[in-house]
Amino acid sequence: MSGLILGVGKYLIKRAVADDGDVPDVTIPDDGEGDTNPVTEEIFSSWALFILLLLLISALWSSYYLQQKRIQAVHETVLSIFYGMIVGLIIRVSPGHYIQDTVTFNSSYFFNVLLPPIILNSGYELHQANFFRNIGSILTFAIPGTFISAVVLGVILYVWTALGLESVNISFVDALSVGATLSATDPVTILSIFNAYKVDPKLYTIIFGESLLNDAISIVMFETCQQFHGRDAKFTSFFEGIGLFLMTFTISLLIGVIVGILVALILKHSHIRRYPQIESCFVLLIAYESYFFSNGCHMSGIVSLLFCGITLKHYAYYNMSRRTQISTKYIFQLLARLSENFIFVYLGLALFTEVELVYKPMLIIVTTISICLARWAAVFPLSRLINWVHRMRSNGQSLPDEIPYQYQMMTFWAGLRGAVGVALAMGLQGEFKSTLLATVLVVVVLTVILFGGTTAGMLEVLNIKTGCVDEDESDDEFDIEAPKAITTNSVLANRRFNKSTPAVPYSDIRNRSSPNINPQEDLLRDDDAPTDLDEIPPLMPASVNPMERSSTSIVGTVQSILHTDDRARWFQNFDEQVLKPVLLDVDPSKNNRNGSPPN
Amino acid sequence: MSGLILGVGKYLIKRAVADDGDVPDVTIPDDGEGDTNPVTEEIFSSWALFILLLLLISALWSSYYLQQKRIQAVHETVLSIFYGMIVGLIIRVSPGHYIQDTVTFNSSYFFNVLLPPIILNSGYELHQANFFRNIGSILTFAIPGTFISAVVLGVILYVWTALGLESVNISFVDALSVGATLSATDPVTILSIFNAYKVDPKLYTIIFGESLLNDAISIVMFETCQQFHGRDAKFTSFFEGIGLFLMTFTISLLIGVIVGILVALILKHSHIRRYPQIESCFVLLIAYESYFFSNGCHMSGIVSLLFCGITLKHYAYYNMSRRTQISTKYIFQLLARLSENFIFVYLGLALFTEVELVYKPMLIIVTTISICLARWAAVFPLSRLINWVHRMRSNGQSLPDEIPYQYQMMTFWAGLRGAVGVALAMGLQGEFKSTLLATVLVVVVLTVILFGGTTAGMLEVLNIKTGCVDEDESDDEFDIEAPKAITTNSVLANRRFNKSTPAVPYSDIRNRSSPNINPQEDLLRDDDAPTDLDEIPPLMPASVNPMERSSTSIVGTVQSILHTDDRARWFQNFDEQVLKPVLLDVDPSKNNRNGSPPN
Repeated sequence: MSGLILGVGKYLIKRAVADDGDVPDVTIPDDGEGDTNPVTEEIFSSWALFILLLLLISALWSSYYLQQKRIQAVHETVLSIFYGMIVGLIIRVSPGHYIQDTVTFNSSYFFNVLLPPIILNSGYELHQANFFRNIGSILTFAIPGTFISAVVLGVILYVWTALGLESVNISFVDALSVGATLSATDPVTILSIFNAYKVDPKLYTIIFGESLLNDAISIVMFETCQQFHGRDAKFTSFFEGIGLFLMTFTISLLIGVIVGILVALILKHSHIRRYPQIESCFVLLIAYESYFFSNGCHMSGIVSLLFCGITLKHYAYYNMSRRTQISTKYIFQLLARLSENFIFVYLGLALFTEVELVYKPMLIIVTTISICLARWAAVFPLSRLINWVHRMRSNGQSLPDEIPYQYQMMTFWAGLRGAVGVALAMGLQGEFKSTLLATVLVVVVLTVILFGGTTAGMLEVLNIKTGCVDEDESDDEFDIEAPKAITTNSVLANRRFNKSTPAVPYSDIRNRSSPNINPQEDLLRDDDAPTDLDEIPPLMPASVNPMERSSTSIVGTVQSILHTDDRARWFQNFDEQVLKPVLLDVDPSKNNRNGSPPN
Repeated sequence: MSGLILGVGKYLIKRAVADDGDVPDVTIPDDGEGDTNPVTEEIFSSWALFILLLLLISALWSSYYLQQKRIQAVHETVLSIFYGMIVGLIIRVSPGHYIQDTVTFNSSYFFNVLLPPIILNSGYELHQANFFRNIGSILTFAIPGTFISAVVLGVILYVWTALGLESVNISFVDALSVGATLSATDPVTILSIFNAYKVDPKLYTIIFGESLLNDAISIVMFETCQQFHGRDAKFTSFFEGIGLFLMTFTISLLIGVIVGILVALILKHSHIRRYPQIESCFVLLIAYESYFFSNGCHMSGIVSLLFCGITLKHYAYYNMSRRTQISTKYIFQLLARLSENFIFVYLGLALFTEVELVYKPMLIIVTTISICLARWAAVFPLSRLINWVHRMRSNGQSLPDEIPYQYQMMTFWAGLRGAVGVALAMGLQGEFKSTLLATVLVVVVLTVILFGGTTAGMLEVLNIKTGCVDEDESDDEFDIEAPKAITTNSVLANRRFNKSTPAVPYSDIRNRSSPNINPQEDLLRDDDAPTDLDEIPPLMPASVNPMERSSTSIVGTVQSILHTDDRARWFQNFDEQVLKPVLLDVDPSKNNRNGSPPN
């Protein structure tokens, strides 16, 4: 990015000097590596940053305008890409090519600066009840789904290139690498649309969880493939790869959870909450540490950071001062939003300014069609599998499909690719690197424009329930202009059809004026909603009529094998009786910061 | 920083590989510019960032520990420098020097990434009442003070080098450049100590305002000097320089104020507050735009950003959604704190890892003594001048000194130098660049350790009032563990001895349950405290006895020349009757977001 910034900056200064001729004291170095005067350099980079921030502001303002006018056809991320492309095009057609040398998509910046805030915020914002209730579907789509997608895409690409129509000749391992690269779906665009429309939480959670986890899985798959680059692929490599993958996933998850628990314990056993400014920095920095530590150990930082975020929210959050609770939440959101917009601006820029790219139109078309096929092959068969397992487990009850057709179609449609793919493609090796990278870049931008631009319309065509408000949002006590309460209750009425008492939004409890409210009760009502709901049958989308129902005798067998409900209850008990007392600071005399501030 | 990160990362990986020998698949490129595999590069930078964040966490944790244990002798920033020095030393004594080539203090990062959050937060957090009440003293110390300091230091250095004892021979303009460089006092350390001890707000404001403005002034002076580098300094150059300086300052100030007003108007006339996430990003980005735009136009970004922050807080703040008010505040604070700590870690690192530095011990000692002399020559005479003018204006009343001796001593002591000086010194030209840069770096670190480490003790020795709580802090409604209320009232009792009704803390108003409270009244009580207090004689420090008082007949003349009170009242009326109605969104039907959130 430094290169990008300086490049754009120098370019602009050069133009300015050329235009009016009387800018004094600006010496323009012709290459970025010279012994430049820092003061001059600072002016270069000031203009570059000015332009970049202006692009971000334009994207944000467009987003506001689109939301305000309820325009569905175009989305913020698509506009971000377009704005980036326009600036990229201007740089491209302008004389002099040293800028194009410096404006490159730097995968190190992407992985170290832009990606972490998005992942951390995702973990922190995750509706844990919904996530764990749908964990089966999410993992099915994420793990075998990504695998199927990568293999289908890899095979199609290998066969196409083997035909020799475009004089591109890649090995099967390289084809599989590209397949893995293009199997990472992008959580950003779809989710911002889903958030704006308040799509049914179950669908939201499945797509969100899948796109989060499949980034991690694509990365691990890609790295595994790269290890076999130039080697002969053996049949044992397949199992080696799967073993490596499972190990990476588990260790990464553990790193994240351990770091989260560590933060909870530190917050509980220290008085750092008396200094909320230090506390906020501390939480943010430690979460990042889990990411960098995990990446440094050849594990998946994304998985660690995601689960670190989840653990922080589940335990550490309740040991924080109220101020840190609010500030971490807002800061994570802001950083995530800025990163998201920046990534898309950057992708648009890269499309025109990457000088080494070799565009092969036929390969791009074939790849675009292939990723649709690959996504299709992953989503629909796996949805049927999930529905079948669900029917097996329903024990004769007449339940609707776990993943009805609309949801399958929407999950397919949500398979647009993002910046993770481009960042991974930077790591491709071999003589056709430039061709493959160009293909990945164009395909990613195309999917974002095509699928991202039509998602809102698709929601309407498929008649998917929108306008649902998550319980989580009741925490946004300052969002007082946002519509609330009314929709929440109607949704809840659809969802909680047995057992649980009407949920009391956390903010209601907090806003009671008594500072002596029992924090344990407070916690239970808010966060333990998941545990209350564990035994409730999965959500019924309000717009779906109950469909085929079958009860067979193997239900018991399947259930006894899966033990899912039992396991969930075991963890729930363990969480309540062991983990929470150990990790949370439940002494009421200390803990009234979780209640209403005493005035 | 990128270089730093990669360098440290590669180093660590190399060590790791050397240690256990069986890390697979890590190819270590020997120079940073090669065609490295992004995945490998990512692992390098992960470790580097891990170490950097660990340094930051250590610094923050030390800060917490020091505050918790009420240890005064050592300060957080001193520890940050030490932690940086330790890591820098390890890098230095380790074999291989390619890291030392890459670990450099990059002034572009300093000016574009680390400095803006600190300045923006300063403007946003500034107690406007105190700042404008003491604007005379602040400007006196900042403008003639910095000038005197730079000239005294420049002359001493010029004379010393002309003696030829160390075969360093610099021109007078270069000596003056170094003088300007070392006249930028650092706002960070002193203010964090002052904040921790809740030092008397008047002293706090003067030192804070001075150190903020004199950074800007040093930068402008330095750049002016650099324009005369290699040229003969003429007597007219002096006036040219002054003219340039005044123009830069005024235009920069206007850019900041205009941007702030623009934000207020946009927030007033749009519905962006319905989308608080976008709104927060928008406010942050636009503030940064003022900085980069101003720098890009050869103006002073620091001045623009500072006044943009002040204007944002004075007008735009009241047009924001409540959520954006809180999130901007917390985000600016967090970013500022991280930047501050990072800067000091970085300074410590640079001390050992800058390979080109040429250390001349005698020059360093002479410079260290000179900056004390220069600071002395700036603070004490100007304090006398301020006290004299104040006595002239006191119209026969028996008032204590405006700047009593303790305050003078403390202002002198607060003259420690910071990272702005080092960043400026990077821009020095000529054959003795390395010597001068090394001198500046060492002197900066020495002053931080010497003066920073003894500030808390000095506060005690000078018997300066601590434990004062600013009214502003009543906005921190979530800081409920911090002691409040009791001290506030006693301080207020000392301060407001006429006219104004007892101030009602903003949070009290906000926490009234009625959502129909008139926001105009709300605003007046909070922000207009400055205007209420404009006519009150300057603060009397509670621990100072009234001293020499003299009333002369020229008082009337001085007052009629200065017109300060009249002008203040004129602006107050203009602000109330023209600016606020135009800029603030005072329609009560829309505006209850500034009141208590309706539950």
